[in-house]
Amino acid sequence: MSATEKAEAKPPMRDALVAAAFQLFLERGYEQTTVDDIVALAGVGRRSFFRYFPSKEDVVFPDHERCLADMTAFLAASEADAEPVRRVCDGARLVLRMYAENPSFSVQRYRLTKKVPGLRAYELSVVWRYERALAEYLRGRFTGGSDGSLRADVIASAVVAAHNNALRSWLRSDGEGDATATVDHALGYVQAAFGAAPAPPADEHPEDVVVVVSRRGAPLWRVVQEIETTLGRS
Amino acid sequence: MSATEKAEAKPPMRDALVAAAFQLFLERGYEQTTVDDIVALAGVGRRSFFRYFPSKEDVVFPDHERCLADMTAFLAASEADAEPVRRVCDGARLVLRMYAENPSFSVQRYRLTKKVPGLRAYELSVVWRYERALAEYLRGRFTGGSDGSLRADVIASAVVAAHNNALRSWLRSDGEGDATATVDHALGYVQAAFGAAPAPPADEHPEDVVVVVSRRGAPLWRVVQEIETTLGRS
Repeated sequence: MSATEKAEAKPPMRDALVAAAFQLFLERGYEQTTVDDIVALAGVGRRSFFRYFPSKEDVVFPDHERCLADMTAFLAASEADAEPVRRVCDGARLVLRMYAENPSFSVQRYRLTKKVPGLRAYELSVVWRYERALAEYLRGRFTGGSDGSLRADVIASAVVAAHNNALRSWLRSDGEGDATATVDHALGYVQAAFGAAPAPPADEHPEDVVVVVSRRGAPLWRVVQEIETTLGRS
Repeated sequence: MSATEKAEAKPPMRDALVAAAFQLFLERGYEQTTVDDIVALAGVGRRSFFRYFPSKEDVVFPDHERCLADMTAFLAASEADAEPVRRVCDGARLVLRMYAENPSFSVQRYRLTKKVPGLRAYELSVVWRYERALAEYLRGRFTGGSDGSLRADVIASAVVAAHNNALRSWLRSDGEGDATATVDHALGYVQAAFGAAPAPPADEHPEDVVVVVSRRGAPLWRVVQEIETTLGRS
């Protein structure tokens, strides 16, 4: 999607409301700002506000609904034989992209959310919905296998935790640094623990085996890291 | 703690308020019940209610604060060389014990929570606090290692997801079945992915090695399962 198409897809009034809201949140504080204050500054009526946002909290997170819909569509469009853990990691990367599209807005919001308990609660419920979207996809993929729902829930939760650990570290750095590389590294840890190996290239012998020798007392994640390195995965 | 000591530790008025609240929630619905209704049925004043519970939501989850405190104390009392993943799994088992102490109350509450969005949000915030307690302990244990905070967050999240998957499956079965065995199985999956091997028994040669041979295309979790089996862990 080009920058022009994106500008067209987001109604200017919606953007104006978000901009007005954040200006006031930063000047006066979140709790001290009313919806009336926001619409007055944006020069629109209350009904316009509620056409775009069900509540004041929603204007703080204006893109999560779109991102949730994008993630659900992305997962629904997966190839039937897509490696499931890699696929949910790619789904999580859609959330990162939303944050990285506008670093200064994301950093402002991060600081605001840390200060306002109601916004933290809202964010928890959004994170939970992302996690459920990933888990539902994995449950579908693991149907019939043993412990399908357990594996789905644990992996979805691990993916979200890794993504959020990396995202928060990027937000704490004021949006400096390479968000994508940080998240890739974090998701790589989850893939090492749960993911399948990529399909072998056609020119490779499919019966190719990997031998790992490990001291019995070694932590399992080290063994997994060893296997990862041997398999030459990123 | 004996049953007698536990009865003494819980003031009867607090128990009476919880019992009255649940009777009304089941009869009239949660939203239709006020704090005034609860105190009238329990035969106490409003101030007594708020001495024990900050809000109506808190009476639905009367034992989480105690359980969070127990978990924090349990983790703080860990031996310095305790295997950290096993330790957080044992911490999570304290939550299960709280639910399993009173199956019919837990099942009633589960049904209520599913129906009331405000209670689901409350529960998410409680779950988040358990997860942070486990993650904080792991961060302390992983200090200095590479990716300490990432590993701590991912493992804490995976432990909570596994615990809750098993807990919900037990609650959906109306509290029938063996909650402990179900949770042990779920936590075993997380330990297989992230946990260290137990220290070798003294009579075993410490340089003992494990050899795993795996086809290159095998899913990593299968390889991990293989290692688990070889190491003879439960």
